[in-house]
Amino acid sequence: MTGVTVQSVTVLGAGSWGTTFAKVLADAGRDVTMWARRAEVAAEIRDGHTNSRYLPGVELPSRLTATSDPAEALAGAEAVVLAVPSQSLRANLTGWRELLPREAILVSLAKGVELGSLKRMSEVISEIAEVPSGDVVVVSGPNLAKEIAQRQPAAAVLASADHDRAVAIQQASFNSYFRPYTNTDVVGCELGGACKNVIALSCGIASGLGFGANTMATLITRGLAETARLGAKLGADPLTFAGLAGVGDLVATCASPLSRNRTFGERIGRGETTAQAQEAVGGQVAEGVMSCQSIRELARGVGVDMPITEAMYRVCHEGMDPVRVGAELLGRQQKHEWS
Amino acid sequence: MTGVTVQSVTVLGAGSWGTTFAKVLADAGRDVTMWARRAEVAAEIRDGHTNSRYLPGVELPSRLTATSDPAEALAGAEAVVLAVPSQSLRANLTGWRELLPREAILVSLAKGVELGSLKRMSEVISEIAEVPSGDVVVVSGPNLAKEIAQRQPAAAVLASADHDRAVAIQQASFNSYFRPYTNTDVVGCELGGACKNVIALSCGIASGLGFGANTMATLITRGLAETARLGAKLGADPLTFAGLAGVGDLVATCASPLSRNRTFGERIGRGETTAQAQEAVGGQVAEGVMSCQSIRELARGVGVDMPITEAMYRVCHEGMDPVRVGAELLGRQQKHEWS
Repeated sequence: MTGVTVQSVTVLGAGSWGTTFAKVLADAGRDVTMWARRAEVAAEIRDGHTNSRYLPGVELPSRLTATSDPAEALAGAEAVVLAVPSQSLRANLTGWRELLPREAILVSLAKGVELGSLKRMSEVISEIAEVPSGDVVVVSGPNLAKEIAQRQPAAAVLASADHDRAVAIQQASFNSYFRPYTNTDVVGCELGGACKNVIALSCGIASGLGFGANTMATLITRGLAETARLGAKLGADPLTFAGLAGVGDLVATCASPLSRNRTFGERIGRGETTAQAQEAVGGQVAEGVMSCQSIRELARGVGVDMPITEAMYRVCHEGMDPVRVGAELLGRQQKHEWS
Repeated sequence: MTGVTVQSVTVLGAGSWGTTFAKVLADAGRDVTMWARRAEVAAEIRDGHTNSRYLPGVELPSRLTATSDPAEALAGAEAVVLAVPSQSLRANLTGWRELLPREAILVSLAKGVELGSLKRMSEVISEIAEVPSGDVVVVSGPNLAKEIAQRQPAAAVLASADHDRAVAIQQASFNSYFRPYTNTDVVGCELGGACKNVIALSCGIASGLGFGANTMATLITRGLAETARLGAKLGADPLTFAGLAGVGDLVATCASPLSRNRTFGERIGRGETTAQAQEAVGGQVAEGVMSCQSIRELARGVGVDMPITEAMYRVCHEGMDPVRVGAELLGRQQKHEWS
């Protein structure tokens, strides 16, 4: 596939990142149709040019339209952006499979590793849509939705084994505030995106326990190291973790008060139960809570040691006291940095 | 040098990091003598167990003593910690040269590249103290002084070409909240420490201009990349920049509101002059303002492209408008992430 021009794009999912990415595409001159599960959200986007629940205060471009009918949304799409939560991607996509235009480029915004199958999102898409997994384009990078929706300048990574598909989406999304770079390391970009939610959780907990920037920076550094160890074992390019989809995404998520994973962790660190913390972030389970389980299993399966992920699993799924976990993580070995 | 035990340590310089590191050593059971330029600061540390100007609210250990007489401070020291600003290290050390005990391990806390000579701090120490540069132990990592002074857990890196010297300082400084790792890549650790002040300056400017965590994360990622490019050219181990002395130190400095470089940059971003911004951070020139000049020269000399460092030089030394620099840094090329 070379030199494809993408003009008509469908975004499936109307959460904050899906809506923001639809806005990015519309601001780049594309014709964008969004699908929202609820008819009233679709109507608000289509007629009122806002999505007040997920992107309050942001005016959406008038060339962005929306529907709650997936068949209507998908008709004629040259690219289809999958913007549903990672653990429901399989079920959603199964329902949409017959509606996907045969030639459409599939784009994934979801970050996570599927519970049970332990598959990355591009692998799930490949399996359900019956396309080579290399054909999927994965979006990653330091991309807090609300900041991009405010047209703050941001860089992103578009990863695909098929460079031409990545370039097609690059051209379709590039605008005055959104600067996408292509990358061929899909495995590394997806693992970076999935693992960062777990590290963000740990940074939130540390902050809730009263620790400052040194501890956060240490967790980010050691978290990046354990992510890179897993990536190396699964065939990722180590350079990816030093880039926008690795350290970039991780730092943005961990540093921002806007991150749901960080906020959730902060409340756990302050002594709230997971149920209380969940309520405080809008009733949704933070992605990192599920990811620490699937990533832990994935890592154990290939014999990779991921102490921060293990610790988060014990806090979120075994009820271990975060104070005790913190003490363990900051243990007492005297050694060389890389031993 | 193997199996050396260090009990008696002298810390030359009573700024916030020097005082904090002296406290770390005392809390690890060492006998620590500090030298302060001003007699009243030495007296306050020695008799009142505080350093109210540089470490307000922190009680210092009673086993930590201080003097303003360098000869008295240095007598019998088994390790000498140099904790003066990088641009005055040469002049200070020249004055102390004859007083240094012959066998003492020299430890550097200074982060920077010397203006004019373009030497790293361990090179300056080696030249003036007439010791092999590999004998110097460099301290780096995510080490915001005020947090460590509050006994918040922190990891650090002790880099020396002589592993035994690094281990001796590791054993001398290891305590319940300070966890030092050894490393043999002195070049990488020193460049990481010097360059991070420049990147922190750029993060401060971005924040002052109103940008959020995406932009900061992008500057950190691209800043780390340009630091690693310079490091690779000068013989550093690329792994160092992925570790505590690279991304760790960088994230701590950029994320913390305590960092002088970040605060200085924030004021520049809000439209203050360099003189106004300097006044707001206590009248001292932020380290990054000097480092962007020396690092730029160093990079140009070896043909390495460092766009963020170049931009900071133009803002700090050529009076360029930060808004214009920001627009240039977030330019418009569409390309592969690593091209």
